[in-house]
Amino acid sequence: MTETVTTSISKVAPDRIIVKGYNLADMPGRYQFGDVVYLLMTGDLPAGHEGDMIEAMLVATAEHSINAPAIHAARTVAGCGVPIQTAIAAGVSAIGDYHGGAGEACARILQDAVAQNPDLDPQTLAARLVSDFRQQKKRLPGFGHRFHTPVDPRSRRLLALAAEWELSGPHSALARAIAQELQRVSGRPLPMNVDGAMAAILSDMGVDWRFNKAVFIIARTAGLAAHVHEEMTTGKPMQFAGKRQVNYIGPPERPLP
Amino acid sequence: MTETVTTSISKVAPDRIIVKGYNLADMPGRYQFGDVVYLLMTGDLPAGHEGDMIEAMLVATAEHSINAPAIHAARTVAGCGVPIQTAIAAGVSAIGDYHGGAGEACARILQDAVAQNPDLDPQTLAARLVSDFRQQKKRLPGFGHRFHTPVDPRSRRLLALAAEWELSGPHSALARAIAQELQRVSGRPLPMNVDGAMAAILSDMGVDWRFNKAVFIIARTAGLAAHVHEEMTTGKPMQFAGKRQVNYIGPPERPLP
Amino acid sequence: MTETVTTSISKVAPDRIIVKGYNLADMPGRYQFGDVVYLLMTGDLPAGHEGDMIEAMLVATAEHSINAPAIHAARTVAGCGVPIQTAIAAGVSAIGDYHGGAGEACARILQDAVAQNPDLDPQTLAARLVSDFRQQKKRLPGFGHRFHTPVDPRSRRLLALAAEWELSGPHSALARAIAQELQRVSGRPLPMNVDGAMAAILSDMGVDWRFNKAVFIIARTAGLAAHVHEEMTTGKPMQFAGKRQVNYIGPPERPLP
Amino acid sequence: MTETVTTSISKVAPDRIIVKGYNLADMPGRYQFGDVVYLLMTGDLPAGHEGDMIEAMLVATAEHSINAPAIHAARTVAGCGVPIQTAIAAGVSAIGDYHGGAGEACARILQDAVAQNPDLDPQTLAARLVSDFRQQKKRLPGFGHRFHTPVDPRSRRLLALAAEWELSGPHSALARAIAQELQRVSGRPLPMNVDGAMAAILSDMGVDWRFNKAVFIIARTAGLAAHVHEEMTTGKPMQFAGKRQVNYIGPPERPLP
Repeated sequence: MTETVTTSISKVAPDRIIVKGYNLADMPGRYQFGDVVYLLMTGDLPAGHEGDMIEAMLVATAEHSINAPAIHAARTVAGCGVPIQTAIAAGVSAIGDYHGGAGEACARILQDAVAQNPDLDPQTLAARLVSDFRQQKKRLPGFGHRFHTPVDPRSRRLLALAAEWELSGPHSALARAIAQELQRVSGRPLPMNVDGAMAAILSDMGVDWRFNKAVFIIARTAGLAAHVHEEMTTGKPMQFAGKRQVNYIGPPERPLP
Repeated sequence: MTETVTTSISKVAPDRIIVKGYNLADMPGRYQFGDVVYLLMTGDLPAGHEGDMIEAMLVATAEHSINAPAIHAARTVAGCGVPIQTAIAAGVSAIGDYHGGAGEACARILQDAVAQNPDLDPQTLAARLVSDFRQQKKRLPGFGHRFHTPVDPRSRRLLALAAEWELSGPHSALARAIAQELQRVSGRPLPMNVDGAMAAILSDMGVDWRFNKAVFIIARTAGLAAHVHEEMTTGKPMQFAGKRQVNYIGPPERPLP
Repeated sequence: MTETVTTSISKVAPDRIIVKGYNLADMPGRYQFGDVVYLLMTGDLPAGHEGDMIEAMLVATAEHSINAPAIHAARTVAGCGVPIQTAIAAGVSAIGDYHGGAGEACARILQDAVAQNPDLDPQTLAARLVSDFRQQKKRLPGFGHRFHTPVDPRSRRLLALAAEWELSGPHSALARAIAQELQRVSGRPLPMNVDGAMAAILSDMGVDWRFNKAVFIIARTAGLAAHVHEEMTTGKPMQFAGKRQVNYIGPPERPLP
Repeated sequence: MTETVTTSISKVAPDRIIVKGYNLADMPGRYQFGDVVYLLMTGDLPAGHEGDMIEAMLVATAEHSINAPAIHAARTVAGCGVPIQTAIAAGVSAIGDYHGGAGEACARILQDAVAQNPDLDPQTLAARLVSDFRQQKKRLPGFGHRFHTPVDPRSRRLLALAAEWELSGPHSALARAIAQELQRVSGRPLPMNVDGAMAAILSDMGVDWRFNKAVFIIARTAGLAAHVHEEMTTGKPMQFAGKRQVNYIGPPERPLP
């Protein structure tokens, strides 16, 4: 007996793989991976440069070296003697709210704000959002970067491409206005980081905010694979984590009762 | 105090992200994701169509519907109330020896055989390999498909592109010879499946066999993201797994001693 | 060079393993696992029956058969050809807000309510909480069970042991009052389920609400191990997920543009 | 429609949870967790001290401080802003062949050797095994410890308890003979480490070697929970991994072609 499940994504037959209506088996060589990612997220093939834009995002965030916590986690696990997918999966599981997650939070704010205030100009809306977050003493996700200062070279390039490819809309306008307002009230530059830029552009391309982390995950899986491979082929077992000096501040040594 | 780690992959500075010598921040819009994946796996940008070929592979295997166990696992986890990356990671962890893993095993066989027998023609080498596996009563991984019969439409297309783009070499020749030999001794067609085709082509492109699963993982992360998103937005909590009738064959009910 | 990390949990030396001040290597045979779990969560060995109570909870929730989504996910992954820990990890990752997570949410509510209202009697506090949740049209987590009706046999037993072992305090009193109030306003019994009972008792034992899922995870890892082992030793590769009839509701088949 | 799955482990009904024939809901307070773990692994409740022995093993390996790679991986992931189960799962996934996996390998060797050589005395069998491994230039897993020298205090205690509780049999005898032979041929003490001791004792208790890692995983989940909790409540986001000095040895910086 067979259970039935409903999906709008795909179905397969021996001679074809239908994804959102198209036969995936006919697409290699004719479409880019970015087109298929866009198709899977929105249900349609790009009308313009949307697939190029996804490709650009995948390129920009494919790798960010060894101090990214997801890479660190994956290499630590890789050094324990596991298959490649187990170590990559550990890295993927680390793409959380604090690491690669700012884009999701930022996209949600942008999409909610634009949807709920269709008639408000970006400057007014930005001033309101910045004021709300400052009152709650919270940071607006997607602006500023702890390492890439003053400006994240990836966001600069992605925003330039979005402008060139005519993919900028109300969400990007709002994000730019937020960056200006943040600079005005804080007195220092807080430009969109790569999470913020991707959030704004993906929102203008009609991608649901819940997919933001996914684009980053797809991209970074490439970097994770390279690091896990390097650890498996050149690392010593269990050595990646290193040896920390432990400063133990628990109860002093005591006899068992 | 800071520990030092050695890597040949990348380093970052506030204004740039160096990957295998190139500034990744300059690459969006100029290079495809497939080029970067190839760069991360081999250390060089494509000299020919290698990046196009990786893109074609990512397209071909991005999605394969709901009965793929990795998708099934990810949707089951997604229904339990977890963040998107947790469910995707569970799916990635399922890309094991029996599911998406045939390519790794096949590439290893092809790379070992070609490296150890540089002077042998493909037909002789194929006959030897097929005979060895038959004696051990093992299946040669990468040939035949439980669902896509007689031929996997993805492998047909990928092999055609490899020929067109002049990326076929001794590993593909050996794989083709194996398929012919398998058909000869078994009396039925056992063509390269998508795992086998990718193994042969990646091997000819100089990609280490340990990366085979990784290409599949990068691709399928796209399909995983779409299915996890669908489950999170349209599924009922904990319902994806369904309800099985349990045929309990353990000890009969008994009182505690 | 070595980095220093600070922890209050433990430190090791060649001849001993200090956990919260005690040498773990001296404890096997003298202390139960439940004592050590309690020690790790609160910093002290039990003064009374707290370790027995943790043991009772671990026993009660060690296993719940094949339709639990975490078990389903783990067996699906196990069938893909991975090591045992990879499949168990996939199961652990499914212990989310909807599956094994009600205890965390319930314990947080109980601990916040008791801490913020030290002078209020349980009945008044319960009435207020039930009213608040009904106004927000939300269910109070930890009460009622979709399968074990009218009463979860595990919570009945755990609550009886807590009473016998004099481990019931204000959080259990509040939880009981909530159950009565829920029955009063809904007209049907909504007793504490096993998540709710564990939340109330652990709270009375001084365990931070953030540990609630952890107790369940430790326990269920035993069941996960048994199911993964059964799948690895008796299951056919990739067969556990079964084959679903796919009801595809996406765009109809269409030619590529 | 409902699919049927067969299992020898358990079945549930609204008023009971049958595990290997016994109602789990009646067991809290009457049986220890170690009894249930033994029941799940062998199908029977202990005839003697087997449940006590499992408890002793769970106690011995519940925690081993911050330099254990699984703990390191879990704390790294915990610092990324994920739910507790996601970080614990990453730690579980690191219990691989090099970290907590020696017990599985050792138990397999012991069980195979005893089963295939029922009439051979332990000394002869040990000499043969040691000689085989030395010829293959491989280490026998389960003997010696990189940190706990000369003797792992946990294995000493577990072996003493096994003797006291009359749980030692042919597998422990063989493991002891191997340790003696290793010392004889190497000229230095290579006693059973905790993995080796658990492998020998579990084998004598009739537990399949495939469960060895599982006992360690169940135990260490307790330590993982404590460390993840500490990181979530006291750590700064993304800080656990630390900052490494990157010694980049890839291609020098070069312009894009």
